[in-house]
Amino acid sequence: MPSPPRPSSCRKLIPRRTQNLSFVLEGIHKVKFEDRPVPQLKDPHDVLINVRYTGICGSDVHYWEHGAIGQFVVKEPMVLGHESAGVISQVGSAVTSLKVGDRVAMEPGIACRRCEPCKSGKYNLCENMAFAATPPYDGTLAKYYVLPEDFCYKLPETLSLEEGALMEPLSVAVHIVRQAQVSPGQSVVVFGAGPVGLLCAAVATAFGASKVIAVDIQQPRLDFAKQYATTSTFLPGKASAQENAERLKKENDLGTGADVAIDASGAEPSVHTGIHVLRNGGTYVQGGMGRSEIQFPIMAACSKELTLKGSFRYGSGDYKLAVGLVSEGRVNVKQLITGTVKFEEAERAFLEVKAGKGIKTLITGINE
Amino acid sequence: MPSPPRPSSCRKLIPRRTQNLSFVLEGIHKVKFEDRPVPQLKDPHDVLINVRYTGICGSDVHYWEHGAIGQFVVKEPMVLGHESAGVISQVGSAVTSLKVGDRVAMEPGIACRRCEPCKSGKYNLCENMAFAATPPYDGTLAKYYVLPEDFCYKLPETLSLEEGALMEPLSVAVHIVRQAQVSPGQSVVVFGAGPVGLLCAAVATAFGASKVIAVDIQQPRLDFAKQYATTSTFLPGKASAQENAERLKKENDLGTGADVAIDASGAEPSVHTGIHVLRNGGTYVQGGMGRSEIQFPIMAACSKELTLKGSFRYGSGDYKLAVGLVSEGRVNVKQLITGTVKFEEAERAFLEVKAGKGIKTLITGINE
Amino acid sequence: MPSPPRPSSCRKLIPRRTQNLSFVLEGIHKVKFEDRPVPQLKDPHDVLINVRYTGICGSDVHYWEHGAIGQFVVKEPMVLGHESAGVISQVGSAVTSLKVGDRVAMEPGIACRRCEPCKSGKYNLCENMAFAATPPYDGTLAKYYVLPEDFCYKLPETLSLEEGALMEPLSVAVHIVRQAQVSPGQSVVVFGAGPVGLLCAAVATAFGASKVIAVDIQQPRLDFAKQYATTSTFLPGKASAQENAERLKKENDLGTGADVAIDASGAEPSVHTGIHVLRNGGTYVQGGMGRSEIQFPIMAACSKELTLKGSFRYGSGDYKLAVGLVSEGRVNVKQLITGTVKFEEAERAFLEVKAGKGIKTLITGINE
Amino acid sequence: MPSPPRPSSCRKLIPRRTQNLSFVLEGIHKVKFEDRPVPQLKDPHDVLINVRYTGICGSDVHYWEHGAIGQFVVKEPMVLGHESAGVISQVGSAVTSLKVGDRVAMEPGIACRRCEPCKSGKYNLCENMAFAATPPYDGTLAKYYVLPEDFCYKLPETLSLEEGALMEPLSVAVHIVRQAQVSPGQSVVVFGAGPVGLLCAAVATAFGASKVIAVDIQQPRLDFAKQYATTSTFLPGKASAQENAERLKKENDLGTGADVAIDASGAEPSVHTGIHVLRNGGTYVQGGMGRSEIQFPIMAACSKELTLKGSFRYGSGDYKLAVGLVSEGRVNVKQLITGTVKFEEAERAFLEVKAGKGIKTLITGINE
Repeated sequence: MPSPPRPSSCRKLIPRRTQNLSFVLEGIHKVKFEDRPVPQLKDPHDVLINVRYTGICGSDVHYWEHGAIGQFVVKEPMVLGHESAGVISQVGSAVTSLKVGDRVAMEPGIACRRCEPCKSGKYNLCENMAFAATPPYDGTLAKYYVLPEDFCYKLPETLSLEEGALMEPLSVAVHIVRQAQVSPGQSVVVFGAGPVGLLCAAVATAFGASKVIAVDIQQPRLDFAKQYATTSTFLPGKASAQENAERLKKENDLGTGADVAIDASGAEPSVHTGIHVLRNGGTYVQGGMGRSEIQFPIMAACSKELTLKGSFRYGSGDYKLAVGLVSEGRVNVKQLITGTVKFEEAERAFLEVKAGKGIKTLITGINE
Repeated sequence: MPSPPRPSSCRKLIPRRTQNLSFVLEGIHKVKFEDRPVPQLKDPHDVLINVRYTGICGSDVHYWEHGAIGQFVVKEPMVLGHESAGVISQVGSAVTSLKVGDRVAMEPGIACRRCEPCKSGKYNLCENMAFAATPPYDGTLAKYYVLPEDFCYKLPETLSLEEGALMEPLSVAVHIVRQAQVSPGQSVVVFGAGPVGLLCAAVATAFGASKVIAVDIQQPRLDFAKQYATTSTFLPGKASAQENAERLKKENDLGTGADVAIDASGAEPSVHTGIHVLRNGGTYVQGGMGRSEIQFPIMAACSKELTLKGSFRYGSGDYKLAVGLVSEGRVNVKQLITGTVKFEEAERAFLEVKAGKGIKTLITGINE
Repeated sequence: MPSPPRPSSCRKLIPRRTQNLSFVLEGIHKVKFEDRPVPQLKDPHDVLINVRYTGICGSDVHYWEHGAIGQFVVKEPMVLGHESAGVISQVGSAVTSLKVGDRVAMEPGIACRRCEPCKSGKYNLCENMAFAATPPYDGTLAKYYVLPEDFCYKLPETLSLEEGALMEPLSVAVHIVRQAQVSPGQSVVVFGAGPVGLLCAAVATAFGASKVIAVDIQQPRLDFAKQYATTSTFLPGKASAQENAERLKKENDLGTGADVAIDASGAEPSVHTGIHVLRNGGTYVQGGMGRSEIQFPIMAACSKELTLKGSFRYGSGDYKLAVGLVSEGRVNVKQLITGTVKFEEAERAFLEVKAGKGIKTLITGINE
Repeated sequence: MPSPPRPSSCRKLIPRRTQNLSFVLEGIHKVKFEDRPVPQLKDPHDVLINVRYTGICGSDVHYWEHGAIGQFVVKEPMVLGHESAGVISQVGSAVTSLKVGDRVAMEPGIACRRCEPCKSGKYNLCENMAFAATPPYDGTLAKYYVLPEDFCYKLPETLSLEEGALMEPLSVAVHIVRQAQVSPGQSVVVFGAGPVGLLCAAVATAFGASKVIAVDIQQPRLDFAKQYATTSTFLPGKASAQENAERLKKENDLGTGADVAIDASGAEPSVHTGIHVLRNGGTYVQGGMGRSEIQFPIMAACSKELTLKGSFRYGSGDYKLAVGLVSEGRVNVKQLITGTVKFEEAERAFLEVKAGKGIKTLITGINE
């Protein structure tokens, strides 16, 4: 494996005065700062946002390391980043809900509004989605970004812009927990205690789950999870998935099994343990991305008549609920922000995420 | 593999006059006829049924060949059979809906009515289910069988007892199609053109599906399916699951994919093709039993945000609807009855099913 | 009440050569033909349609007679009509699914695609809906009409343009039956045997209902219903709603009650009988419009734990399914077309509908 | 109206030593204490409970005052009471989940477990329900009562028996809020701030509702509600239902309307305001009982495409969740217990409830 470039290498190239400085991926481990033109509003409902904070997630790092995720291949230079919040700096003629200066969380995927999924309330499955930092669409790691007003969510005064950037992973978690149809009194096992897993645990608690159990193979992550948003934690032993599932059920007094299992790890052993830990008729949601094919205990899923669902990004109402959960104090995202790096040092955030350092690193924006 | 006993071998042992002659599995490929006492009504709501026709299904044959299905192991001699219809010969004191002489389809699993699944409308997932021909519970291949009245479904005059025996596999199909939530106008791909697959196709049609496509690796089965209850058929080629899925979509004008895929085959390539043939947000139901673990395209399921469900036996309202579908002429089960053998030659039915001869073989009952 | 104008009165005013002759309501019983400019495409996804057939429904007649429906008041001259089919005569630059010459059914309400109902799959509840012939939006009784391509439904070769015009009331019925969640085997009672009630009966049958009972106070309508799409009919007697409900249940062997009641009449006695005819846990859908307030048996609805739903116009997937149901031969709309009048005599259609003559009268378009 | 008997009048008649002293309604305002035999276990799953606390609700008072509720008429002397908790004093041979001495909340309606509603998960709609203190079934205001074990809910150590008696009205509220499908982030308006309305507000909050607004015509009840479990309160003014609804929306920043309205009052103006306060597509649940017929704004319900539901008692999972909500500290029921009277003075509780004194009065049991 080639050693990644030192992050300082491209800093010198930043010009003094810029219009719309952007952090661009050119190829594997090859990034640069580029001063692009300020994007224009294309529709009367569009707004121009001055991006202030951007979180870095596993998919950004995956593009940086591999130049592709599955069938999505970076062929042209592409701006990275999609977990952002910023300040409205221009509004289109038809905009009614926002004004210049408003602080907003940015939902970074623009749906076509015309295809069958869009019109049936599943715009996250839009056939023509333009999603930030998914080729060929540029991301939000730039000074400016354009969105339709209805994909911007005004932050209440009590929420900071840093928290606003966390609305993206929180919306991912909201969508997963909604897919799982978590309801009050249920028991929920979450596999993977990274940012999305932790947020799933927090959202499941906010949805009224009685037991929320975090599973991870790293004890420090479980220690964090314990004081964050779970009723208990579970460190899998060197045993079969079925044995781990049995022990998990026993230790947590789950009777015939858990109501819901959420995988936010993408790891095959998690998937197996998740299937085996469920009661008859339970629900499993695959939130984490991993290998495209894995060994799978299909007969257990069939004879227990489980419901299994994928969860893909976020859709109708997810961002709105995410903002609501934080502003009402039901979910805490501040605790997850473990570091901030300057825009000029953006690549450092990629190195930190890759190294598993902290939970969520934010890149500050350019607002001078 | 030991050669199976000649079916005639045990026939001689049948006594002239019997009380409740029963077809008993003692071990692998080891069956006998035994004259057991007539079972007693245990509850005022019970009825005694003189069993007249019993279909043989793959699970019966599996017990006969392997002495077990998964964790269910035949330890004590067990009467086989669970697809039956018969005539009421005695009713308990509290029975109001049936009388002696009524012809009924027999739902062969008695739920406890007290556990959480039972009380929440999912009695097929009952924690204390007593299911015919599932160890340690005896099956219906006997002269008499006892059931609570509410697990018997009176056949309308237009339905024969032979058709009545088919209500069991039809209820399996009804449950699968309901799990899939097939609705009018949808496209449904059914993998496996055996009895359950064919019935799934017929039920999906009755539920208003616009396109019902049967997939099987045996052309003769597809030929039967074509004239039975499908809009088209598909013979997978020697290609990847994804390539077969693409061809299936193209040949059937399915656009971005099918709404529903049902696997009634239990075969790994079917599962893969089923996942790949679905549109974003589509529904997959696993109806067929196969290997306990298989390779599985989990990322496709996740990123298309599919809903996957198991389907286990049948539950609330399934038998009632099955009888209704046939009596209203929406589903034809007669066409599937390809042979009948006498009770005294019961084992022959097992050999025929194992050999894949015909579609459904019925064993006649003892009613003298 | 002022006598309505003779329909011939305005015919003379029609100029020889017209661009976009339109049938305009100016006030109560005051209509005129006006030659308006051909409407322009506003969006690259728009198409221009040469309207060929337009059905007249109760709401059109209501505007003609009263100048208003509820809070919707005709203040400016407004083109009437919204049940139309036509031929594509121009397509916008982004249109991919249609070409000039295509025959289409026209969905006459353009949703904003941006409000919460739109994005959650309920665009019929759009907060900014522009609906044909609902003030201040002009209707389709003109030579030309503009729609986005996704609100046009290409007719298969087997469907005529006359049938295409019927897709509108059929979509109303599809939406009602979907709101009722009619599923195979259910019993459905439909109150009102006018066009929408008849279509509800036909759609319920296509959805697999076992019993579909039409209720009307006019025997000739029931006679038509009987041979059209019902399993039986019911003429209410001079008795209480509860007594009529009891008789209806008894005559139709409905046991503790019907699964579904649909009101397509808007009449208070129908509502009462509908509530009383339902079983515990049954579903009632209000499809017909009538007085804004009525006497209502709320305790029966509460203690039987009914689900009651309104049904408003049509939304996601309804038109598509309507076209499918007819093209697959599951619903017949031809039988309902009982008359055609020339565009130049449009007002005659209003008089006929008002007089209850026939079932559905179509106005032909101008296509020279 | 005849003046009610002084409650002390029947106290003298209580014998010193009793087997199963019971509080019996003989006719309107005519009660007595009767020493009945201790009831026998009828089924191996039955348990005998020594009743310790019983709340009195409006329906008990209604029987006491009118001798009937709707079609349920007290023809034979009947023990009153159905909101109870007690201690297990005997268990049947098949009982596994309880032992003598266990403290339990008592679900007072025994379903038949065999009818269609029971088998489809809606046992509250059981066709053969034996419900305490609903003619002809005796209630729980006695020393002993028999229930199947699965209708008893073991109280965790942190819950008192007094709180246990409150599980009944709390289960009513849980069922109502579940019927309303309240989900996180929603706005919920509750009409009526009596015990059930207050509990609905508390449960809606526990289900994650963002705004919970209590409506009542008595300011003191609103004052209590405010510090109990609502985000705001509303005192209707002398205006039309529509005007009150508009003001309620404005004061609470509800935009186009509330997501959910729950009526726990049974009053016609509440029903009207509830319908008008909802957004398009909102949900209304009728929880309170009132006049059998009222004037109803049916066109508003239809054109806003509302979902309206009745709510009847409680069913699958409701009691279990009620106990969970209190033991997890999500709902507080202690605050609602405003008084206790001795069993020997039981009638005093009826007088207090009738007078609207306090919120919930409990009658202590006989446990010597």
